[in-house]
Amino acid sequence: MFETVKNRRTIRKYLPKEIAPDLLNDLLETSFRASTMGGMQLYSVIVTRDAEMKEKLSPAHFNQPMVKNAPVVLTYCVDFRRFSKWCEQRNATPGYDNLMSFMNATIDTLLVAQTFCTLAEEAGLGICYLGTTTYNPQMIIETLSLPELVFPITTITVGYPDGIPAQVDRLPLKGIVHNEYFRDYTPESIDEMYAYKESLPENKKFIEENQKETLAQVFTEVRYTKKDNEFMSDNLLKILRQQGFLK
Amino acid sequence: MFETVKNRRTIRKYLPKEIAPDLLNDLLETSFRASTMGGMQLYSVIVTRDAEMKEKLSPAHFNQPMVKNAPVVLTYCVDFRRFSKWCEQRNATPGYDNLMSFMNATIDTLLVAQTFCTLAEEAGLGICYLGTTTYNPQMIIETLSLPELVFPITTITVGYPDGIPAQVDRLPLKGIVHNEYFRDYTPESIDEMYAYKESLPENKKFIEENQKETLAQVFTEVRYTKKDNEFMSDNLLKILRQQGFLK
Repeated sequence: MFETVKNRRTIRKYLPKEIAPDLLNDLLETSFRASTMGGMQLYSVIVTRDAEMKEKLSPAHFNQPMVKNAPVVLTYCVDFRRFSKWCEQRNATPGYDNLMSFMNATIDTLLVAQTFCTLAEEAGLGICYLGTTTYNPQMIIETLSLPELVFPITTITVGYPDGIPAQVDRLPLKGIVHNEYFRDYTPESIDEMYAYKESLPENKKFIEENQKETLAQVFTEVRYTKKDNEFMSDNLLKILRQQGFLK
Repeated sequence: MFETVKNRRTIRKYLPKEIAPDLLNDLLETSFRASTMGGMQLYSVIVTRDAEMKEKLSPAHFNQPMVKNAPVVLTYCVDFRRFSKWCEQRNATPGYDNLMSFMNATIDTLLVAQTFCTLAEEAGLGICYLGTTTYNPQMIIETLSLPELVFPITTITVGYPDGIPAQVDRLPLKGIVHNEYFRDYTPESIDEMYAYKESLPENKKFIEENQKETLAQVFTEVRYTKKDNEFMSDNLLKILRQQGFLK
Protein backbone atom coordinates (compact mmCIF):
# COMPACT_ATOMS: atom_id res chain seq x y z
CA MET A 1 0.00 0.00 0.00
CA PHE A 2 3.00 2.29 0.61
CA GLU A 3 4.05 1.44 -2.93
CA THR A 4 0.60 2.28 -4.30
CA VAL A 5 0.74 5.75 -2.75
CA LYS A 6 4.40 6.29 -3.69
CA ASN A 7 3.68 5.43 -7.31
CA ARG A 8 0.33 7.10 -7.63
CA ARG A 9 -0.65 9.40 -10.47
CA THR A 10 -3.81 11.32 -11.09
CA ILE A 11 -5.75 9.42 -13.77
CA ARG A 12 -7.70 11.52 -16.27
CA LYS A 13 -8.41 8.85 -18.91
CA TYR A 14 -10.49 5.78 -18.14
CA LEU A 15 -11.23 2.50 -19.88
CA PRO A 16 -14.87 2.00 -20.92
CA LYS A 17 -15.39 -0.45 -18.06
CA GLU A 18 -17.97 -0.09 -15.32
CA ILE A 19 -17.10 -0.23 -11.63
CA ALA A 20 -19.09 -3.10 -10.08
CA PRO A 21 -21.69 -1.68 -7.65
CA ASP A 22 -20.53 -4.03 -4.88
CA LEU A 23 -16.94 -2.84 -5.23
CA LEU A 24 -17.99 0.81 -5.21
CA ASN A 25 -20.19 0.30 -2.15
CA ASP A 26 -17.42 -1.56 -0.35
CA LEU A 27 -14.96 1.25 -1.06
CA LEU A 28 -17.45 3.88 0.09
CA GLU A 29 -18.48 2.00 3.22
CA THR A 30 -14.87 1.32 4.18
CA SER A 31 -13.96 4.99 3.63
CA PHE A 32 -16.66 6.01 6.12
CA ARG A 33 -14.41 4.49 8.80
CA ALA A 34 -12.26 7.63 8.53
CA SER A 35 -12.13 9.90 11.59
CA THR A 36 -15.20 12.09 12.01
CA MET A 37 -15.85 14.87 14.51
CA GLY A 38 -17.80 13.49 17.45
CA GLY A 39 -18.94 10.57 15.27
CA MET A 40 -21.29 12.97 13.48
CA GLN A 41 -20.38 11.96 9.89
CA LEU A 42 -21.06 15.37 8.40
CA TYR A 43 -21.05 14.38 4.74
CA SER A 44 -23.02 12.94 1.85
CA VAL A 45 -21.73 11.44 -1.37
CA ILE A 46 -23.69 11.76 -4.61
CA VAL A 47 -22.89 8.94 -7.04
CA THR A 48 -23.31 9.86 -10.70
CA ARG A 49 -23.33 7.03 -13.24
CA ASP A 50 -26.08 8.27 -15.53
CA ALA A 51 -24.78 9.78 -18.80
CA GLU A 52 -27.39 12.52 -18.80
CA MET A 53 -26.46 13.59 -15.28
CA LYS A 54 -22.76 13.65 -16.24
CA GLU A 55 -23.68 15.84 -19.18
CA LYS A 56 -25.44 18.24 -16.81
CA LEU A 57 -22.53 18.31 -14.34
CA SER A 58 -19.93 18.81 -17.05
CA PRO A 59 -20.21 22.63 -17.51
CA ALA A 60 -19.75 23.17 -13.75
CA HIS A 61 -16.35 21.55 -14.23
CA PHE A 62 -15.46 23.66 -17.28
CA ASN A 63 -16.29 20.65 -19.48
CA GLN A 64 -13.15 18.80 -18.43
CA PRO A 65 -13.43 15.46 -20.30
CA MET A 66 -13.05 13.32 -17.15
CA VAL A 67 -16.62 14.03 -16.10
CA LYS A 68 -18.20 12.41 -19.13
CA ASN A 69 -15.42 9.87 -19.64
CA ALA A 70 -15.34 8.36 -16.11
CA PRO A 71 -17.75 5.54 -15.28
CA VAL A 72 -18.41 7.11 -11.88
CA VAL A 73 -18.39 10.71 -10.66
CA LEU A 74 -18.57 11.26 -6.90
CA THR A 75 -19.64 14.64 -5.58
CA TYR A 76 -18.60 14.97 -1.94
CA CYS A 77 -20.89 17.26 0.01
CA VAL A 78 -20.61 18.84 3.41
CA ASP A 79 -23.90 17.77 5.06
CA PHE A 80 -25.09 19.21 8.37
CA ARG A 81 -28.68 18.68 7.25
CA ARG A 82 -29.00 15.04 8.29
CA PHE A 83 -27.60 15.72 11.75
CA SER A 84 -29.70 18.86 12.20
CA LYS A 85 -32.89 17.06 11.16
CA TRP A 86 -32.12 14.32 13.65
CA CYS A 87 -31.64 16.92 16.40
CA GLU A 88 -34.96 18.56 15.55
CA GLN A 89 -36.72 15.20 15.69
CA ARG A 90 -35.20 14.51 19.11
CA ASN A 91 -36.25 17.64 20.95
CA ALA A 92 -32.81 19.22 20.51
CA THR A 93 -32.10 22.61 18.90
CA PRO A 94 -29.30 22.35 16.31
CA GLY A 95 -26.86 25.27 16.02
CA TYR A 96 -24.94 24.33 12.90
CA ASP A 97 -25.89 27.12 10.49
CA ASN A 98 -22.55 28.86 10.81
CA LEU A 99 -19.00 28.97 9.45
CA MET A 100 -17.43 26.89 12.24
CA SER A 101 -19.86 24.06 11.51
CA PHE A 102 -19.13 24.39 7.81
CA MET A 103 -15.39 24.03 8.52
CA ASN A 104 -15.95 21.02 10.78
CA ALA A 105 -18.04 19.34 8.12
CA THR A 106 -15.49 20.26 5.44
CA ILE A 107 -12.80 18.43 7.39
CA ASP A 108 -15.04 15.37 7.88
CA THR A 109 -15.92 15.28 4.19
CA LEU A 110 -12.39 15.58 2.87
CA LEU A 111 -11.05 12.84 5.15
CA VAL A 112 -13.64 10.47 3.73
CA ALA A 113 -12.97 11.55 0.15
CA GLN A 114 -9.26 10.96 0.50
CA THR A 115 -9.69 7.62 2.25
CA PHE A 116 -11.87 6.57 -0.66
CA CYS A 117 -9.14 7.56 -3.11
CA THR A 118 -6.41 5.61 -1.35
CA LEU A 119 -8.65 2.53 -1.18
CA ALA A 120 -9.73 2.90 -4.81
CA GLU A 121 -6.13 3.15 -6.00
CA GLU A 122 -5.20 0.09 -3.97
CA ALA A 123 -8.06 -1.71 -5.78
CA GLY A 124 -6.57 -0.79 -9.19
CA LEU A 125 -8.79 2.18 -9.95
CA GLY A 126 -7.58 5.67 -10.85
CA ILE A 127 -8.97 8.95 -9.57
CA CYS A 128 -8.93 12.65 -10.36
CA TYR A 129 -10.01 15.47 -8.04
CA LEU A 130 -11.97 18.30 -9.62
CA GLY A 131 -11.10 21.55 -7.85
CA THR A 132 -13.71 23.22 -10.02
CA THR A 133 -16.38 22.04 -7.54
CA THR A 134 -16.09 25.14 -5.36
CA TYR A 135 -15.71 27.42 -8.39
CA ASN A 136 -19.25 26.82 -9.61
CA PRO A 137 -21.09 25.39 -6.61
CA GLN A 138 -24.37 26.91 -7.77
CA MET A 139 -24.54 24.78 -10.92
CA ILE A 140 -23.80 21.62 -8.94
CA ILE A 141 -26.31 22.53 -6.22
CA GLU A 142 -29.03 22.89 -8.84
CA THR A 143 -28.11 19.78 -10.81
CA LEU A 144 -27.94 17.53 -7.74
CA SER A 145 -30.82 19.22 -5.84
CA LEU A 146 -28.69 20.06 -2.80
CA PRO A 147 -30.81 21.68 -0.07
CA GLU A 148 -29.83 24.00 2.81
CA LEU A 149 -26.93 22.86 5.01
CA VAL A 150 -25.54 20.79 2.14
CA PHE A 151 -22.65 22.11 0.03
CA PRO A 152 -20.46 20.43 -2.65
CA ILE A 153 -16.85 20.60 -1.49
CA THR A 154 -15.05 18.38 -3.98
CA THR A 155 -15.63 15.93 -6.82
CA ILE A 156 -13.73 12.79 -7.74
CA THR A 157 -13.89 11.02 -11.08
CA VAL A 158 -13.13 7.29 -10.79
CA GLY A 159 -12.49 4.49 -13.24
CA TYR A 160 -10.04 1.91 -14.52
CA PRO A 161 -6.95 3.73 -15.86
CA ASP A 162 -6.50 3.99 -19.61
CA GLY A 163 -2.72 4.27 -19.62
CA ILE A 164 -0.34 5.41 -16.91
CA PRO A 165 0.83 9.02 -17.28
CA ALA A 166 4.24 10.20 -16.07
CA GLN A 167 4.46 10.98 -12.37
CA VAL A 168 4.56 14.70 -11.59
CA ASP A 169 7.11 16.39 -9.35
CA ARG A 170 6.83 17.23 -5.66
CA LEU A 171 8.70 19.81 -3.60
CA PRO A 172 11.48 18.47 -1.35
CA LEU A 173 10.35 17.31 2.10
CA LYS A 174 12.30 20.00 3.92
CA GLY A 175 10.33 22.70 2.14
CA ILE A 176 7.12 21.42 3.71
CA VAL A 177 8.00 19.96 7.10
CA HIS A 178 8.96 22.38 9.88
CA ASN A 179 10.48 21.11 13.12
CA GLU A 180 8.89 22.48 16.30
CA TYR A 181 7.92 25.85 14.78
CA PHE A 182 7.40 27.54 11.44
CA ARG A 183 10.66 28.80 9.87
CA ASP A 184 9.79 31.52 7.46
CA TYR A 185 10.99 31.18 3.89
CA THR A 186 14.01 33.11 2.68
CA PRO A 187 14.84 34.04 -0.92
CA GLU A 188 17.48 31.30 -0.81
CA SER A 189 15.16 28.61 0.56
CA ILE A 190 12.54 29.47 -2.06
CA ASP A 191 15.11 29.20 -4.86
CA GLU A 192 16.29 25.86 -3.51
CA MET A 193 12.79 24.41 -3.09
CA TYR A 194 11.59 25.31 -6.57
CA ALA A 195 14.85 24.58 -8.44
CA TYR A 196 13.88 21.03 -9.42
CA LYS A 197 10.37 22.00 -10.55
CA GLU A 198 11.79 24.85 -12.64
CA SER A 199 14.41 22.61 -14.22
CA LEU A 200 11.89 20.17 -15.70
CA PRO A 201 11.57 20.24 -19.52
CA GLU A 202 7.75 19.96 -19.29
CA ASN A 203 7.62 23.09 -17.17
CA LYS A 204 9.93 24.97 -19.50
CA LYS A 205 7.63 23.97 -22.35
CA PHE A 206 4.66 25.17 -20.30
CA ILE A 207 6.22 28.64 -20.00
CA GLU A 208 6.85 28.78 -23.74
CA GLU A 209 3.37 27.61 -24.69
CA ASN A 210 1.86 30.30 -22.50
CA GLN A 211 4.34 32.91 -23.73
CA LYS A 212 5.42 33.87 -20.21
CA GLU A 213 8.79 34.66 -18.66
CA THR A 214 8.54 32.42 -15.62
CA LEU A 215 6.61 29.35 -14.50
CA ALA A 216 5.11 31.38 -11.65
CA GLN A 217 3.58 33.75 -14.20
CA VAL A 218 1.75 30.83 -15.81
CA PHE A 219 0.07 30.32 -12.44
CA THR A 220 -0.66 33.94 -11.58
CA GLU A 221 -1.60 35.15 -15.07
CA VAL A 222 -3.21 32.07 -16.64
CA ARG A 223 -4.17 29.27 -14.28
CA TYR A 224 -5.06 30.86 -10.91
CA THR A 225 -5.42 34.59 -11.34
CA LYS A 226 -6.12 37.15 -8.63
CA LYS A 227 -9.17 38.35 -10.55
CA ASP A 228 -10.70 34.86 -10.80
CA ASN A 229 -9.90 34.09 -7.17
CA GLU A 230 -11.51 37.28 -5.95
CA PHE A 231 -14.59 36.75 -8.09
CA MET A 232 -14.93 33.16 -6.86
CA SER A 233 -14.34 34.22 -3.24
CA ASP A 234 -17.31 36.60 -3.41
CA ASN A 235 -19.37 33.88 -5.03
CA LEU A 236 -18.34 31.37 -2.37
CA LEU A 237 -19.51 33.71 0.39
CA LYS A 238 -22.79 34.20 -1.43
CA ILE A 239 -23.41 30.47 -1.84
CA LEU A 240 -22.38 29.74 1.76
CA ARG A 241 -25.05 32.24 2.82
CA GLN A 242 -27.59 30.70 0.47
CA GLN A 243 -26.94 27.19 1.79
CA GLY A 244 -27.33 28.43 5.36
CA PHE A 245 -23.74 28.36 6.61
CA LEU A 246 -23.23 32.11 7.01
CA LYS A 247 -25.44 34.92 8.27
CA MET B 1 -4.86 -2.30 3.74
CA PHE B 2 -8.66 -2.60 3.32
CA GLU B 3 -8.62 -4.54 6.59
CA THR B 4 -6.58 -1.83 8.32
CA VAL B 5 -9.13 0.82 7.37
CA LYS B 6 -12.12 -1.44 8.15
CA ASN B 7 -10.77 -2.21 11.60
CA ARG B 8 -9.44 1.21 12.44
CA ARG B 9 -10.07 3.03 15.69
CA THR B 10 -9.01 6.45 16.84
CA ILE B 11 -6.13 5.95 19.27
CA ARG B 12 -5.95 8.33 22.23
CA LYS B 13 -3.44 6.44 24.41
CA TYR B 14 0.11 5.80 23.27
CA LEU B 15 3.00 3.67 24.46
CA PRO B 16 6.07 5.61 25.64
CA LYS B 17 7.90 4.71 22.44
CA GLU B 18 9.37 7.18 19.99
CA ILE B 19 8.57 7.14 16.27
CA ALA B 20 11.86 6.71 14.39
CA PRO B 21 12.64 9.90 12.43
CA ASP B 22 13.19 7.90 9.23
CA LEU B 23 9.78 6.27 9.53
CA LEU B 24 8.07 9.58 10.21
CA ASN B 25 9.82 11.24 7.27
CA ASP B 26 8.94 8.34 4.99
CA LEU B 27 5.27 8.55 6.01
CA LEU B 28 5.23 12.32 5.49
CA GLU B 29 7.04 12.22 2.16
CA THR B 30 4.80 9.45 0.86
CA SER B 31 1.69 11.36 1.97
CA PHE B 32 2.81 14.35 -0.12
CA ARG B 33 2.00 12.20 -3.16
CA ALA B 34 -1.69 12.94 -2.50
CA SER B 35 -3.51 14.99 -5.13
CA THR B 36 -2.78 18.72 -4.95
CA MET B 37 -4.38 21.56 -6.89
CA GLY B 38 -2.22 22.41 -9.89
CA GLY B 39 0.74 20.73 -8.17
CA MET B 40 0.96 23.74 -5.84
CA GLN B 41 1.24 21.78 -2.55
CA LEU B 42 -0.49 24.41 -0.45
CA TYR B 43 0.43 23.06 2.99
CA SER B 44 3.04 22.89 5.71
CA VAL B 45 3.35 20.38 8.53
CA ILE B 46 4.77 21.37 11.90
CA VAL B 47 6.27 18.40 13.75
CA THR B 48 6.20 18.71 17.55
CA ARG B 49 8.31 16.24 19.55
CA ASP B 50 9.63 18.61 22.21
CA ALA B 51 7.87 18.23 25.59
CA GLU B 52 7.92 21.97 26.24
CA MET B 53 6.27 22.70 22.89
CA LYS B 54 3.59 20.08 23.59
CA GLU B 55 2.98 21.77 26.93
CA LYS B 56 2.49 25.08 25.12
CA LEU B 57 0.14 23.58 22.51
CA SER B 58 -1.91 21.71 25.08
CA PRO B 59 -4.27 24.53 26.22
CA ALA B 60 -5.22 25.28 22.60
CA HIS B 61 -6.57 21.72 22.54
CA PHE B 62 -8.46 22.09 25.86
CA ASN B 63 -5.66 20.12 27.55
CA GLN B 64 -6.76 16.86 25.97
CA PRO B 65 -4.16 14.35 27.27
CA MET B 66 -3.21 13.09 23.78
CA VAL B 67 -1.15 16.21 23.10
CA LYS B 68 1.32 15.61 25.91
CA ASN B 69 1.04 11.82 25.78
CA ALA B 70 1.75 11.28 22.06
CA PRO B 71 5.38 11.06 20.90
CA VAL B 72 4.56 13.22 17.88
CA VAL B 73 2.03 15.98 17.31
CA LEU B 74 1.53 17.14 13.72
CA THR B 75 -0.08 20.52 13.07
CA TYR B 76 -1.31 20.67 9.49
CA CYS B 77 -1.32 24.19 8.11
CA VAL B 78 -2.82 25.72 5.03
CA ASP B 79 0.18 27.48 3.46
CA PHE B 80 -0.14 29.89 0.54
CA ARG B 81 2.93 31.75 1.78
CA ARG B 82 5.55 29.52 0.16
CA PHE B 83 3.83 29.68 -3.22
CA SER B 84 3.21 33.42 -2.98
CA LYS B 85 6.83 34.13 -2.04
CA TRP B 86 7.96 32.07 -5.02
CA CYS B 87 5.67 34.09 -7.29
CA GLU B 88 7.04 37.37 -5.96
CA GLN B 89 10.60 36.19 -6.56
CA ARG B 90 9.72 35.24 -10.14
CA ASN B 91 8.24 38.50 -11.34
CA ALA B 92 4.67 37.24 -10.86
CA THR B 93 1.96 38.88 -8.74
CA PRO B 94 0.27 36.35 -6.44
CA GLY B 95 -3.47 36.72 -5.81
CA TYR B 96 -4.02 34.21 -3.05
CA ASP B 97 -5.05 36.44 -0.13
CA ASN B 98 -8.72 35.47 -0.38
CA LEU B 99 -11.28 32.90 0.72
CA MET B 100 -11.21 30.84 -2.48
CA SER B 101 -7.48 30.34 -2.10
CA PHE B 102 -7.97 29.44 1.56
CA MET B 103 -10.51 26.78 0.54
CA ASN B 104 -8.22 25.39 -2.17
CA ALA B 105 -5.36 25.15 0.32
CA THR B 106 -7.67 23.62 2.93
CA ILE B 107 -8.54 20.81 0.52
CA ASP B 108 -4.87 20.24 -0.35
CA THR B 109 -3.90 20.14 3.33
CA LEU B 110 -6.60 17.71 4.44
CA LEU B 111 -5.87 15.26 1.62
CA VAL B 112 -2.28 15.08 2.79
CA ALA B 113 -3.25 14.77 6.46
CA GLN B 114 -5.59 11.89 5.76
CA THR B 115 -3.12 10.10 3.49
CA PHE B 116 -0.61 10.32 6.32
CA CYS B 117 -3.13 8.75 8.71
CA THR B 118 -3.92 5.82 6.45
CA LEU B 119 -0.20 5.16 5.91
CA ALA B 120 0.59 5.53 9.62
CA GLU B 121 -2.12 3.06 10.59
CA GLU B 122 -0.86 0.60 7.99
CA ALA B 123 2.57 0.94 9.66
CA GLY B 124 1.09 0.00 13.06
CA LEU B 125 0.74 3.50 14.47
CA GLY B 126 -2.44 5.02 15.86
CA ILE B 127 -3.75 8.53 15.29
CA CYS B 128 -6.22 11.00 16.70
CA TYR B 129 -7.51 14.14 14.97
CA LEU B 130 -7.89 17.23 17.15
CA GLY B 131 -10.86 19.25 15.91
CA THR B 132 -9.93 21.86 18.51
CA THR B 133 -7.33 23.24 16.06
CA THR B 134 -9.82 25.64 14.44
CA TYR B 135 -11.43 26.50 17.79
CA ASN B 136 -8.34 28.25 19.11
CA PRO B 137 -6.24 28.99 16.06
CA GLN B 138 -4.77 32.11 17.68
CA MET B 139 -3.00 30.15 20.41
CA ILE B 140 -1.54 27.73 17.87
CA ILE B 141 -0.50 30.55 15.53
CA GLU B 142 1.43 32.20 18.35
CA THR B 143 3.00 29.02 19.68
CA LEU B 144 4.19 27.84 16.27
CA SER B 145 5.01 31.33 14.88
CA LEU B 146 2.68 31.01 11.90
CA PRO B 147 2.95 34.07 9.63
CA GLU B 148 0.46 35.54 7.15
CA LEU B 149 -1.04 33.15 4.57
CA VAL B 150 -0.45 30.24 6.95
CA PHE B 151 -3.33 28.85 9.05
CA PRO B 152 -3.60 25.71 11.24
CA ILE B 153 -6.44 23.58 9.89
CA THR B 154 -6.08 20.33 11.84
CA THR B 155 -3.81 18.49 14.24
CA ILE B 156 -2.99 14.81 14.47
CA THR B 157 -1.45 13.08 17.47
CA VAL B 158 0.50 9.95 16.49
CA GLY B 159 2.11 7.09 18.37
CA TYR B 160 2.15 3.36 19.00
CA PRO B 161 -1.26 2.33 20.44
CA ASP B 162 -1.48 1.56 24.14
CA GLY B 163 -4.45 -0.80 23.93
CA ILE B 164 -7.15 -1.14 21.31
CA PRO B 165 -10.43 0.58 22.21
CA ALA B 166 -13.82 -0.68 20.99
CA GLN B 167 -14.75 0.37 17.48
CA VAL B 168 -17.39 3.08 17.35
CA ASP B 169 -20.56 2.94 15.26
CA ARG B 170 -21.18 4.38 11.80
CA LEU B 171 -24.43 5.31 10.08
CA PRO B 172 -25.73 2.85 7.46
CA LEU B 173 -24.35 3.37 3.95
CA LYS B 174 -27.71 4.30 2.49
CA GLY B 175 -27.97 7.26 4.84
CA ILE B 176 -24.88 8.79 3.29
CA VAL B 177 -24.77 7.73 -0.35
CA HIS B 178 -27.29 9.29 -2.73
CA ASN B 179 -27.77 7.92 -6.24
CA GLU B 180 -27.75 10.52 -9.02
CA TYR B 181 -29.21 13.34 -6.88
CA PHE B 182 -29.77 14.30 -3.26
CA ARG B 183 -32.89 12.72 -1.73
CA ASP B 184 -33.95 14.84 1.16
CA TYR B 185 -34.34 13.16 4.54
CA THR B 186 -37.78 12.28 5.84
CA PRO B 187 -38.76 11.76 9.49
CA GLU B 188 -38.84 8.04 8.72
CA SER B 189 -35.43 7.91 7.07
CA ILE B 190 -33.90 9.85 9.98
CA ASP B 191 -35.41 7.44 12.51
CA GLU B 192 -34.11 4.50 10.53
CA MET B 193 -30.60 5.89 10.10
CA TYR B 194 -30.08 6.76 13.75
CA ALA B 195 -31.85 3.69 15.25
CA TYR B 196 -28.67 1.65 15.66
CA LYS B 197 -26.68 4.52 17.18
CA GLU B 198 -29.49 5.25 19.63
CA SER B 199 -29.81 1.59 20.61
CA LEU B 200 -26.20 1.29 21.81
CA PRO B 201 -25.76 0.92 25.60
CA GLU B 202 -22.79 3.33 25.61
CA ASN B 203 -24.95 6.03 24.06
CA LYS B 204 -27.78 5.41 26.53
CA LYS B 205 -25.22 5.77 29.32
CA PHE B 206 -23.99 8.98 27.71
CA ILE B 207 -27.50 10.47 27.90
CA GLU B 208 -27.81 9.49 31.56
CA GLU B 209 -24.40 10.85 32.55
CA ASN B 210 -25.26 14.16 30.95
CA GLN B 211 -28.77 14.15 32.41
CA LYS B 212 -30.44 14.71 29.06
CA GLU B 213 -33.55 13.26 27.45
CA THR B 214 -32.05 12.34 24.07
CA LEU B 215 -28.65 11.66 22.57
CA ALA B 216 -29.10 14.61 20.23
CA GLN B 217 -29.43 16.91 23.26
CA VAL B 218 -26.00 15.78 24.46
CA PHE B 219 -24.67 17.14 21.18
CA THR B 220 -26.64 20.39 21.00
CA GLU B 221 -26.53 21.28 24.71
CA VAL B 222 -23.17 19.89 25.83
CA ARG B 223 -20.73 18.96 23.09
CA TYR B 224 -21.38 21.27 20.13
CA THR B 225 -23.62 24.12 21.21
CA LYS B 226 -25.02 26.87 19.05
CA LYS B 227 -23.47 29.48 21.34
CA ASP B 228 -19.98 27.98 21.10
CA ASN B 229 -20.29 27.51 17.33
CA GLU B 230 -21.35 31.10 16.80
CA PHE B 231 -18.59 32.44 19.02
CA MET B 232 -16.01 30.32 17.22
CA SER B 233 -17.38 31.31 13.79
CA ASP B 234 -16.82 34.99 14.59
CA ASN B 235 -13.36 34.15 15.85
CA LEU B 236 -12.60 32.13 12.72
CA LEU B 237 -13.52 35.08 10.49
CA LYS B 238 -11.31 37.33 12.60
CA ILE B 239 -8.31 35.02 12.38
CA LEU B 240 -8.82 34.41 8.65
CA ARG B 241 -8.63 38.18 8.23
CA GLN B 242 -5.56 38.42 10.44
CA GLN B 243 -3.74 35.69 8.50
CA GLY B 244 -4.55 37.45 5.24
CA PHE B 245 -7.22 35.19 3.72
CA LEU B 246 -10.15 37.58 3.96
CA LYS B 247 -10.53 41.30 3.37
